[in-house]
Amino acid sequence: MIEVELKGYADEEIFERVREKYRLVRREYHKDTYFQHPCRDFSKTDEALRIRVKRFNGHFEVFMTYKGPKLDKKSKTREEIEVELTDPDKYVEILKNLGFVEVLTVTKVREKYYVEKGISIALDEVENLGKFIEIETLVEDEGEIKEAVEHLRAILEELGVEHFERRSYLELLMERYRNGET
Amino acid sequence: MIEVELKGYADEEIFERVREKYRLVRREYHKDTYFQHPCRDFSKTDEALRIRVKRFNGHFEVFMTYKGPKLDKKSKTREEIEVELTDPDKYVEILKNLGFVEVLTVTKVREKYYVEKGISIALDEVENLGKFIEIETLVEDEGEIKEAVEHLRAILEELGVEHFERRSYLELLMERYRNGET
Repeated sequence: MIEVELKGYADEEIFERVREKYRLVRREYHKDTYFQHPCRDFSKTDEALRIRVKRFNGHFEVFMTYKGPKLDKKSKTREEIEVELTDPDKYVEILKNLGFVEVLTVTKVREKYYVEKGISIALDEVENLGKFIEIETLVEDEGEIKEAVEHLRAILEELGVEHFERRSYLELLMERYRNGET
Repeated sequence: MIEVELKGYADEEIFERVREKYRLVRREYHKDTYFQHPCRDFSKTDEALRIRVKRFNGHFEVFMTYKGPKLDKKSKTREEIEVELTDPDKYVEILKNLGFVEVLTVTKVREKYYVEKGISIALDEVENLGKFIEIETLVEDEGEIKEAVEHLRAILEELGVEHFERRSYLELLMERYRNGET
């Protein structure tokens, strides 16, 4: 399965439109830690290795996700492999012993909304970055990506989204830090 | 915790002595797959990354273990970090995407025996390598290693073990393959 994902800049107005129009699935709190590869520059290969601590409804889950390079020019579509971690501290210890280095932590509050079968929207309030809206679906193979992207884009545009963003929160934060903005 | 471990060459006679003297805990079947680091030569750094599929009593468990360099000159003592894998195929996919390469698979039948509080013996029948006996205990810090090794060594010698081996099954098998023996 390939995750087709589109992200745009949002404001309180766009957030309110989504809240009125769609059904809230849940509110989550994410703490994402990104790792650097010991001998590969992920910022050049466009990959990522992330450990996400997710809290919702009093639950607590930890996932490790590998993200492959983006597959098309318009969206954030890429291969993702995700596994649940039963003992996160030990995993981090193994990663560090193997030479992986923690780069940055991204924290955000995410509200997830059901749009239609197979499509969901996330309203993200990202620490030090602001408000974003993400829309996402899954397709079976690369041939279906283009059509899916157009459909997702139309939904976001109808909600008032004007500026889209292909860069990840990690990339955007790294840029801010490099520019000394935070 | 540090695992203090000593391994020796065994034969049917030594196996029988252990079977008579100690209590069988269980019989396990191990399939161990070792991985190469994308940019570090584990054979030089004396590390290892292993995924073990363990079967016993109709159960099925998968663990990933990082093994650090050996800590002393006499035993196989080293730091080990072990985590259980809930979805092994996906983990292997992530490892491969990160550049880790499968090196070799070691299969063996292991009988585990209880020796005394905190000490256990394993009788290993390793495919393409033969019979080995391993004795193991855990210590809190490096200062306790020397005494523990001497104690373990005395137990093995009493059982008739004459030749000890610090190299791992992986190293021994690699050597055999290099010499074209199998």
